[in-house]
Amino acid sequence: MTYSAFDHPYLSGLLGDEAVAAEFSAAAEIRAMLAFEAALARAEAQYGVIPHAAADRITEACRAFYPDVAALRRGVAMDGVAVPELVRQLRRAVGEEAAEHVHYGATSQDVIDTSLMLRLKAIGELFSARLGEIVAALEEGVRQWGERPLMGRTRMQAAIPITVADRMRSWAEPLLDHQDRLDAMDIDLFAVQFGGAAGTLDKLEDKADAVRATLAEELALIDCPQWHSQRSAIADFAHLLSLITGSLGKFGQDIALMAQAGDEIVLAGGGSSSAMAHKQNPVAAEVLVTLARFNATQISGIHQALVHEQERSGSAWTLEWLLLPQIVGATAAALRLATELAGNIRRLGAA
Amino acid sequence: MTYSAFDHPYLSGLLGDEAVAAEFSAAAEIRAMLAFEAALARAEAQYGVIPHAAADRITEACRAFYPDVAALRRGVAMDGVAVPELVRQLRRAVGEEAAEHVHYGATSQDVIDTSLMLRLKAIGELFSARLGEIVAALEEGVRQWGERPLMGRTRMQAAIPITVADRMRSWAEPLLDHQDRLDAMDIDLFAVQFGGAAGTLDKLEDKADAVRATLAEELALIDCPQWHSQRSAIADFAHLLSLITGSLGKFGQDIALMAQAGDEIVLAGGGSSSAMAHKQNPVAAEVLVTLARFNATQISGIHQALVHEQERSGSAWTLEWLLLPQIVGATAAALRLATELAGNIRRLGAA
Amino acid sequence: MTYSAFDHPYLSGLLGDEAVAAEFSAAAEIRAMLAFEAALARAEAQYGVIPHAAADRITEACRAFYPDVAALRRGVAMDGVAVPELVRQLRRAVGEEAAEHVHYGATSQDVIDTSLMLRLKAIGELFSARLGEIVAALEEGVRQWGERPLMGRTRMQAAIPITVADRMRSWAEPLLDHQDRLDAMDIDLFAVQFGGAAGTLDKLEDKADAVRATLAEELALIDCPQWHSQRSAIADFAHLLSLITGSLGKFGQDIALMAQAGDEIVLAGGGSSSAMAHKQNPVAAEVLVTLARFNATQISGIHQALVHEQERSGSAWTLEWLLLPQIVGATAAALRLATELAGNIRRLGAA
Amino acid sequence: MTYSAFDHPYLSGLLGDEAVAAEFSAAAEIRAMLAFEAALARAEAQYGVIPHAAADRITEACRAFYPDVAALRRGVAMDGVAVPELVRQLRRAVGEEAAEHVHYGATSQDVIDTSLMLRLKAIGELFSARLGEIVAALEEGVRQWGERPLMGRTRMQAAIPITVADRMRSWAEPLLDHQDRLDAMDIDLFAVQFGGAAGTLDKLEDKADAVRATLAEELALIDCPQWHSQRSAIADFAHLLSLITGSLGKFGQDIALMAQAGDEIVLAGGGSSSAMAHKQNPVAAEVLVTLARFNATQISGIHQALVHEQERSGSAWTLEWLLLPQIVGATAAALRLATELAGNIRRLGAA
Repeated sequence: MTYSAFDHPYLSGLLGDEAVAAEFSAAAEIRAMLAFEAALARAEAQYGVIPHAAADRITEACRAFYPDVAALRRGVAMDGVAVPELVRQLRRAVGEEAAEHVHYGATSQDVIDTSLMLRLKAIGELFSARLGEIVAALEEGVRQWGERPLMGRTRMQAAIPITVADRMRSWAEPLLDHQDRLDAMDIDLFAVQFGGAAGTLDKLEDKADAVRATLAEELALIDCPQWHSQRSAIADFAHLLSLITGSLGKFGQDIALMAQAGDEIVLAGGGSSSAMAHKQNPVAAEVLVTLARFNATQISGIHQALVHEQERSGSAWTLEWLLLPQIVGATAAALRLATELAGNIRRLGAA
Repeated sequence: MTYSAFDHPYLSGLLGDEAVAAEFSAAAEIRAMLAFEAALARAEAQYGVIPHAAADRITEACRAFYPDVAALRRGVAMDGVAVPELVRQLRRAVGEEAAEHVHYGATSQDVIDTSLMLRLKAIGELFSARLGEIVAALEEGVRQWGERPLMGRTRMQAAIPITVADRMRSWAEPLLDHQDRLDAMDIDLFAVQFGGAAGTLDKLEDKADAVRATLAEELALIDCPQWHSQRSAIADFAHLLSLITGSLGKFGQDIALMAQAGDEIVLAGGGSSSAMAHKQNPVAAEVLVTLARFNATQISGIHQALVHEQERSGSAWTLEWLLLPQIVGATAAALRLATELAGNIRRLGAA
Repeated sequence: MTYSAFDHPYLSGLLGDEAVAAEFSAAAEIRAMLAFEAALARAEAQYGVIPHAAADRITEACRAFYPDVAALRRGVAMDGVAVPELVRQLRRAVGEEAAEHVHYGATSQDVIDTSLMLRLKAIGELFSARLGEIVAALEEGVRQWGERPLMGRTRMQAAIPITVADRMRSWAEPLLDHQDRLDAMDIDLFAVQFGGAAGTLDKLEDKADAVRATLAEELALIDCPQWHSQRSAIADFAHLLSLITGSLGKFGQDIALMAQAGDEIVLAGGGSSSAMAHKQNPVAAEVLVTLARFNATQISGIHQALVHEQERSGSAWTLEWLLLPQIVGATAAALRLATELAGNIRRLGAA
Repeated sequence: MTYSAFDHPYLSGLLGDEAVAAEFSAAAEIRAMLAFEAALARAEAQYGVIPHAAADRITEACRAFYPDVAALRRGVAMDGVAVPELVRQLRRAVGEEAAEHVHYGATSQDVIDTSLMLRLKAIGELFSARLGEIVAALEEGVRQWGERPLMGRTRMQAAIPITVADRMRSWAEPLLDHQDRLDAMDIDLFAVQFGGAAGTLDKLEDKADAVRATLAEELALIDCPQWHSQRSAIADFAHLLSLITGSLGKFGQDIALMAQAGDEIVLAGGGSSSAMAHKQNPVAAEVLVTLARFNATQISGIHQALVHEQERSGSAWTLEWLLLPQIVGATAAALRLATELAGNIRRLGAA
């Protein structure tokens, strides 16, 4: 174990996902923060808040600049957030005249939250595509074995016969709904954060709304008033991810129960045991249950973090940082494992 | 303490709510279950699944009938659910010819889940109205004191001056959004449950869809295929309620912090102390934080309950029964207390 | 559903427990609060803090007095706690001279926390006895079927043969440990709470420690300095109860899995279905899993409630009131159901 | 953000801890797993289960060997656990004759759980020492400012005057208790895991108990029967860590509230703001609250993981892997930050 199994040197073989890990790298975060600073400068120049030359210089610097991460680390130790030190470094990189126009009117939370939204949006697209793949694999299964009889089971007991298609539909239907909801987040969730020191964009005066709208457009995010202390979007995103892992956990649980019964399913790719050479453990199925329970645990902390104090909370906000990446990591793993598992089904229903 | 503070003989003075408690009474549940059985009989008669005379007799019996609750209690002890015994009693009440047509093609979960949806729908309307009242009280506050200066605070420290309106808007805005989402649940969430023994409505053959649609219409619920093991709607409802208490918890936290600072707020109606006659405790504000943290706790269990096994799970389903009423109770209390608290603000901002 | 299934008119047939419900009645709470006030008066009289005659009068009044519960309810609505109104009423019942000596030097939290400890201690004894019964039933099972072969299962797959005794020991052993820990709580957990307005027993001056020690002795609780904001004991108690339901949940899960496999167990007393007359649902086994997951949910809130502010927190403390009774109720139900389930096993292992 | 802030390139400046991170590295885990295999070989040789020469060869190989981590990663992807591939590699490193005696009679969970216990024991010692440092710093504060007056606050309101020492004691006392409990874990918690394929040590026959006792002694762990599916020790450890962060969260909350009030405390080392140069944010204090709420969230999942199925569960066990390191990481950060914060107090109480 390291702190996180999602990027552990070997546990990540089971629990990691490279595409998503790349979005959650420090480098990706830094790129997204710099994208915010550059877009902000351009939006402010467009409305005469800062000079165009400064915006050009800042945009150019953001393209070439990579921060001194050790100094960032010291900055976070002191300030609780990387932005003050990042801005200091960026100002040095930008140089004298334009330096003072870097980060004009913004606050740390604007940078961090917007950078998070940029990356969550990319992850949302990735997850939507994966849901599509799983559904496709399940639909292929319905075509192959859908008409076969299966014993319906309720309260862990044999009930009445159903078909393989009946059960497979209960796996696939919620995934389609989750996919629709992920896709809709481009227009109802992934929003820019821009409020300034205490949320009022005090330094931008009557240009505030226009600058924010342009900033959002530059970043392909939704424009809306700052949500420094209103965290429903974070909770909604986490909630949907936990619905996804919950639905995949139900799929995994069902597969594990079928594999235990032994006669209703043939699976390829089971895991081996260090003690028993004969076993074929339905590892992916089990771990889907694990990941569902993991996200169901984390979601509680996300809701605890709704209680932001006053204009901006350090405490509740930092709690989000600890939880949301974990939820994303678990969802990424679940989607990958479910894709593999759906692809490893060799037969469902009676032979 | 009794098991639940929400209906405790005296703690309910703080934590209870009579209108919502009435929806969560056993009597209300029984009425809703009988409404299902009567509507089902009528819908089945309409498509010739059962005789019209039987449907009339069942409808009539459901109107007059009240079950032997002690026998229901013994039934639940045995069966894990009240419906088998309720149906036995209802069949006796209906009498010979029509008795066999009672509950035709349905399963316990159809009755319980539909009855839950009927009651949640009523509660959703109630909660929406209350959100409206709180927002109205806050908007009145903005009119009275909105332009006064207030020290904006970030990370628990004085930041820059804002106005009272700025902070009050951060309280009111999320409530408006929550109200919209509650209102939309009439068309996207409150759905009939009807699937029969293993979800396939096997006994209704080609009449299944038509009967279900009519049943939904009779009960003014959404028609959709059975969701025995697909519990997103339950999780979505609980999630929204926890967003509501989270937003109200933020309001309460801010008020408690202002009351501690002492000069930014004047509140009526504070609580007294058994040890110190001089104190005015901001009880409602504190308890709003409590209720936010309570729902943030419960939401985890609702997500754990997404992992239903096979066609229907006894274990995960029963977990919902233990959690969802608590979440509703906490939300009812929070809405009532927030209404009182908003009404008890006598001044905000500097004198 | 009502707010709590543990005292619901019919769900309590499955989820209730009468002996424990009696300890969690409002009447039991009132009795325990009056026991505190009477014992406090006697302890204070012993050290000359109040007159002996006043202590006698208070003790006598506490014996006969039952409060006006409707007025208590109004008091809680105002004060957030019942004690100020209870003390007002008790003072009236005690009458003129002695009235001022009621509740001398104490604060509401002293009364509520001590009354809670008195009741938890009684519940601890009850739970310990029940654990003993379950272990005895399991040991009887080991005697009957312990030597029979059973397929050991790991990761939901058949592993190597073990015996019925091997599995039964994994059910019984943790229960013995839990019982030992419950029994030890008489000397390391159930403690008096007595600190006065801000924890310093300021009104008792140099008599404070002696009065507190005597008060503890009168109530058969442990004497220790006030723990107004130090809530480890509450968390430890809740933790142990959740370990108990966790161990019983593992027992239930194993039974449900054996019942699904069908050939390894014969159970009496299964539940019936409203849709399928042939089924024997292992209701108690399933619900043991439910209750384990329920307590695992609640324990999170108990840990959230560790963050008490300053000398005494209204918010975190009230959160305990909402959670702890639920945990007790779930544990009571689990112990009752596990006793029944253990007694309903008719055979384990191959026939 | 990366998946874990505890080892993030720059967030670890605030949330990381190098000493603890070293214990949670993959390298440390591999070392501990090899320590298990070597000690097992020696213990088995001592009782004639495997040849002495094989044990010597295995011990020697374990000293020099470091696995191919990329292959381990592929192994975990297949098997759900690193041990089968690690054992394959180790057998190759050991060479022909002795190879078959590697891991004799053991199962993957024996290796992983024992290696976890070895590392948790080391961490327990580290944490105990840190608690001692915090208490020492607080006691020094009592000596300096203990007699100064401080306004006691209850329910977020001024109550009656207390002293600085009164409040500081409420911070220090629980830490001393937690330290005692950590220290006691050497004799009541950190235990070897050794059960073999299905928990019965079937391959060791009558040597099983002796080998296990010797294995425990070699590793300086407690000897006790296998606890494959009995996870109280894991839950107890996590519970204590969450009590620690809870107590430190209360300390942080109090400091943040004092810093907001402004006149009761002088702190060095506050964080700066990217928007407001004048601010001194009490970052460490806020983050202590964050970490308390984080662990209070995770503890729920640890209790969910008590429901292991049958002889060994893949699902519940893997859930522990995702949660426990996070709890350790949060506790490490909290202890480090609390030490810093206690050292940064320049004055408490009125000037």
